[in-house]
Amino acid sequence: MVTMRDVARQAGVSIATVSFLLNDTKPVTAATRARIEQAMTELGYRRNVVARALASRRTHIIAMAYPALDHRFGFSAAEFFTSAADAARKQDYHLVLWPVGNDGMELRELVGQGLVDGVVLMEVQLEDPRIGILQKTETPFAMIGRTTELAGLSHVDIDFDTTVESAIGHLHGLGHRKLVLVSGDLTDPRFHNYGPYVRTEAAYRRIAAEYGVQVVVLECADTTRAGQEAAARLMREHPDTTAVLVLNEYAGLGVASGLNRLGYDVPAEISILALLMAPETAALSDPELTIMRTPGPELGQLGTEALIRQLEGADPLPPQLVAADLLPGATIAPPRRGKTHPKARVKSGR
Amino acid sequence: MVTMRDVARQAGVSIATVSFLLNDTKPVTAATRARIEQAMTELGYRRNVVARALASRRTHIIAMAYPALDHRFGFSAAEFFTSAADAARKQDYHLVLWPVGNDGMELRELVGQGLVDGVVLMEVQLEDPRIGILQKTETPFAMIGRTTELAGLSHVDIDFDTTVESAIGHLHGLGHRKLVLVSGDLTDPRFHNYGPYVRTEAAYRRIAAEYGVQVVVLECADTTRAGQEAAARLMREHPDTTAVLVLNEYAGLGVASGLNRLGYDVPAEISILALLMAPETAALSDPELTIMRTPGPELGQLGTEALIRQLEGADPLPPQLVAADLLPGATIAPPRRGKTHPKARVKSGR
Repeated sequence: MVTMRDVARQAGVSIATVSFLLNDTKPVTAATRARIEQAMTELGYRRNVVARALASRRTHIIAMAYPALDHRFGFSAAEFFTSAADAARKQDYHLVLWPVGNDGMELRELVGQGLVDGVVLMEVQLEDPRIGILQKTETPFAMIGRTTELAGLSHVDIDFDTTVESAIGHLHGLGHRKLVLVSGDLTDPRFHNYGPYVRTEAAYRRIAAEYGVQVVVLECADTTRAGQEAAARLMREHPDTTAVLVLNEYAGLGVASGLNRLGYDVPAEISILALLMAPETAALSDPELTIMRTPGPELGQLGTEALIRQLEGADPLPPQLVAADLLPGATIAPPRRGKTHPKARVKSGR
Repeated sequence: MVTMRDVARQAGVSIATVSFLLNDTKPVTAATRARIEQAMTELGYRRNVVARALASRRTHIIAMAYPALDHRFGFSAAEFFTSAADAARKQDYHLVLWPVGNDGMELRELVGQGLVDGVVLMEVQLEDPRIGILQKTETPFAMIGRTTELAGLSHVDIDFDTTVESAIGHLHGLGHRKLVLVSGDLTDPRFHNYGPYVRTEAAYRRIAAEYGVQVVVLECADTTRAGQEAAARLMREHPDTTAVLVLNEYAGLGVASGLNRLGYDVPAEISILALLMAPETAALSDPELTIMRTPGPELGQLGTEALIRQLEGADPLPPQLVAADLLPGATIAPPRRGKTHPKARVKSGR
């Protein structure tokens, strides 16, 4: 923190003189004034009027904090971001992306600059160090996601319970009883506390148990390669599985191509339902994946609205949970009755 | 632009009084001073000292301007962005993403706020309205990409000529003579002036002619669907094609799955070489695409360095052109000699 004393020393004048200028209590010569102002500039000293101007300054810019170096910025993330940017624009705000880490260190530096009016938090952890930083700096914020402790925190999130319920219900209705969840990798330190992984797995275990179907969870990183390996492990360890639920977007593509490469006919021999995927990602798979469509466009818009309402002093947006709806593709069919999988074979041309 | 007159009216005082305060030419009462300062704040008026303080303020934040609502923010874009953010971090800067449109309107508003020390421009157009705005506001900037008029502009870019030369040379060396380029869609107003499309197509026409091979260009939007349609059109209109060069990332995935769905055996019957694709995208295709690997990590880092050198007053980074290197996948093979394609058929299970 730069003091008047530092400014006086730098400018080679008395503290009193600096005080005269800052408080307009006594006129000072133009030359002295220039020296002092240069010293303030060099030292980054903010006289009160500047501090006030900066503090009260509304930039009409809001930031989306997304840990882009840790979390994959895929199609779903892009949907959240672009719909948020679009919603901000419609309300005459600019939304910028801050690729700050989940630990909050960089976030602290950025909010300290008073550059934005508020922050939309993405990829929220159950206990998120970023929250305390935003509260301490009195930075308005809204979460797309949920911490465990939610008292009074503005948030919108995916309704994981309803989403998983719809997914299992749909497969169960077709006759599937041997379901497996290929979930996220909670052992990865970047994700050990990540809400969507924890909530999806918990919902799956509870609802699968309610339906009385097999409960098997395979953890898997969010890459195509990891998904392919998970597919191999799945069919090796649970060969009678008739349907796979996959949480992560790129793991889902990997499970599909992995089963394909292993010679399984999807969906005739095994069904795949991607939980929380963007249609653009589903279209990359062949056959096109049946998905629970990530409500990214809805949540990006709602999260931005929740923040802007705070900034505008409007009525707060009540917390919203949005479920993912089933978007049919070509990877779900009824299970083959009383028939186990043929030995895995390799298709011609693969 | 807010004037002293506006401030005076808002504060309910005379212009002279405002002038006394701003120029310290006459003392004004604390109450009047407060009224005037509130008016300045409400109107966003900057008295000189504030303006100077803001102008001289170094935020150590740089922005990457990326038209995320017009251009797809795919894996390649994510590579540029994350490597740029990483490079900035290493030099004690923060990089943020500004999803501003290509017309520069939003960019003008953002730079006007003096929030960042400089800007890295992505998705540069041959004549880019953003350049003039950055120059007029004296905002330091570096381009990842190139305008036609480059005099004195700091830039790094893909070496399209060398990249296309390597791609065609590689296919020609394997015996391919019937090449087709599935290029970007220059009729789309968002891309009509987009450097990579124009430069890649020009390089292809020139180099293909030099090699004396067929010159065919199909324009195609950057979506999987459009790529699948392009594949169908390609085999309908140019059935003797032995190799396809695809410029766009997602169009490339579509061409691969499209040829696959049409029953063509890739690469036995037709080879695919994706120009400028990220490995993560290539891995989404089955069989995995052979690509000219987009030098996103290199260029994101270089573009950031070019900007930071300006900010630090270091020696300017000379313009750099980086060629894409071939990254082998499973979609290239020598052409079938003296054999036309079998009638397209539908593979079982598709």
